Amino acid sequence: MQSSLAVAVDLGGTKVDAALVDDTGRVLPGSRHRAPTGNGATSEQLATSVRDAITRTLTSSARTDIARVTGVGIGAAGPMDIAGGLVSPLNLPVWRGFPLQALVADTVHVTVPDVPVTMRMDGLCITLAEHWVGAARGYDNVMGMIVSTGVGGGLILAGRTVPGPTGNAGHIGHIEAGGFDDPCACGGIGCVEAVASGPRTVAWANAQGWQGSTGEELAAAFAVGEEIAVRAVRRSGRALGQAIASAASLVDLDVVAIGGGFSHVSQTLFDEARAAVAERHQFDYVTRLKIVPSALSGDGPLVGAAALVHRSEMVR
Amino acid sequence: MQSSLAVAVDLGGTKVDAALVDDTGRVLPGSRHRAPTGNGATSEQLATSVRDAITRTLTSSARTDIARVTGVGIGAAGPMDIAGGLVSPLNLPVWRGFPLQALVADTVHVTVPDVPVTMRMDGLCITLAEHWVGAARGYDNVMGMIVSTGVGGGLILAGRTVPGPTGNAGHIGHIEAGGFDDPCACGGIGCVEAVASGPRTVAWANAQGWQGSTGEELAAAFAVGEEIAVRAVRRSGRALGQAIASAASLVDLDVVAIGGGFSHVSQTLFDEARAAVAERHQFDYVTRLKIVPSALSGDGPLVGAAALVHRSEMVR
Repeated sequence: MQSSLAVAVDLGGTKVDAALVDDTGRVLPGSRHRAPTGNGATSEQLATSVRDAITRTLTSSARTDIARVTGVGIGAAGPMDIAGGLVSPLNLPVWRGFPLQALVADTVHVTVPDVPVTMRMDGLCITLAEHWVGAARGYDNVMGMIVSTGVGGGLILAGRTVPGPTGNAGHIGHIEAGGFDDPCACGGIGCVEAVASGPRTVAWANAQGWQGSTGEELAAAFAVGEEIAVRAVRRSGRALGQAIASAASLVDLDVVAIGGGFSHVSQTLFDEARAAVAERHQFDYVTRLKIVPSALSGDGPLVGAAALVHRSEMVR
Repeated sequence: MQSSLAVAVDLGGTKVDAALVDDTGRVLPGSRHRAPTGNGATSEQLATSVRDAITRTLTSSARTDIARVTGVGIGAAGPMDIAGGLVSPLNLPVWRGFPLQALVADTVHVTVPDVPVTMRMDGLCITLAEHWVGAARGYDNVMGMIVSTGVGGGLILAGRTVPGPTGNAGHIGHIEAGGFDDPCACGGIGCVEAVASGPRTVAWANAQGWQGSTGEELAAAFAVGEEIAVRAVRRSGRALGQAIASAASLVDLDVVAIGGGFSHVSQTLFDEARAAVAERHQFDYVTRLKIVPSALSGDGPLVGAAALVHRSEMVR
């Protein structure tokens, strides 16, 4: 018997991807299609892109593959309202309470009638992917983190996803870090996103006199030992570690898997995060947690969306 | 048919309580017994106190009541290891990895053979009590908090307790608050316990020149508008609110119920906490949460321990 397939959809601030993913977490070759989103697009342009990516995935697939589709998984940038199937992605301001789940369902059901559609935050999908095929295999209490233009993530506790009643659990970027007073766009003070995202780390280095403008340039400056770059990476790693320790104090984690473009800036980002966690010497259950780099490919977000179908027994 | 009863045990830093609790959350009159603990006691003295409190509860009860006992619930100060039934209460330094669950089971089973024994952190038990008979009735996503000599608590998510794999989830006092750099005994920086516990709030006021020495004196000074007392309470309320907002960002909460001696210092403690949460304007799912005072009596810890038996369908 051939394995079942999921239609996976990943909606982000700059693009939407769709693909077919099998029950081993593999994207079917040729099935991945992408269309632009972006914060300058109209609502109708965004909807057209979503429909286009999905329709191209379905029309480019063999009829025998379409017959194997058993469900649709959507990962989307938050916030969202999973009860209503609505999304309000911060970077797509024309969509506020937009019925993305219904749009995707209507689009897929033209070709594949009646299959169930599940939507969760992209950070939760990434965490499912780490648990399924990535760096968190074998652990039941997992926090996934993406350190990039923002800091996002998701939670798996006791082997089940934690979406929260609205679907917004896992906004790890908005845990504050003690001693940091960087203002956050959310209204918080010292949120780890306001300290340790790529752009915020670059901005802090700039304020100290560093001249570069991207995370890649910061990584290069770090690699040659430029002092401000080293301090900037250490500072962000420390904030990450403090936020991870706070999260672990609250929910008791086995492993934290960190990916995202800026997570590659330097191994020192991880070392500093681990050092900050190790300082919580009073609590063995906090210091025992492992911080590991993501083991996902660029397909991670789609694999995670597919996990909503293929690993549905874990999904709440 | 008469309702079932639980043997409830609550182990704290200064005393251990035991009682019989019925399935409406009522402590049976006359069944509550207490024995001292304290950080000067030997391990054998502590064990004797636990046995004494339980034995007095059982020997003072009618045989018809003993026949109705269906289980034993233990709430204990953390940290703990629920897989092994071991406790290491910070304020009882002679007990590190002590097999409290076996001690309680052996003691109860002399009188009531074979009934199951469940142990969780005291903060989790309090949270179960708030959900059962207190301020969090009707909510599925609850954080209980106790603001006293420390800051503790517990989590219920999607209608199930969150003990974590080791039993230590819910150490809410060790979530950091951005912008606060008060050193915490745990090794953290700006942990809410290091800012907002009764003793730490008093210590901060003292450092500003206030002359009192207890939370009660601080409450009195607040009541007559002494400026340092007002600033101290506001500062602690703000730290509580920031930690609550961080927790809600991570796990998506409906309600936070706050009890404990220092929570009565002033209504302003709650107002400031709510104001700090309200500042997280970017996330409706955070600002929607309610912060309410505990609605538990002094029996709360025992009622919560009994909930491990009577509400076992919620307990993980």
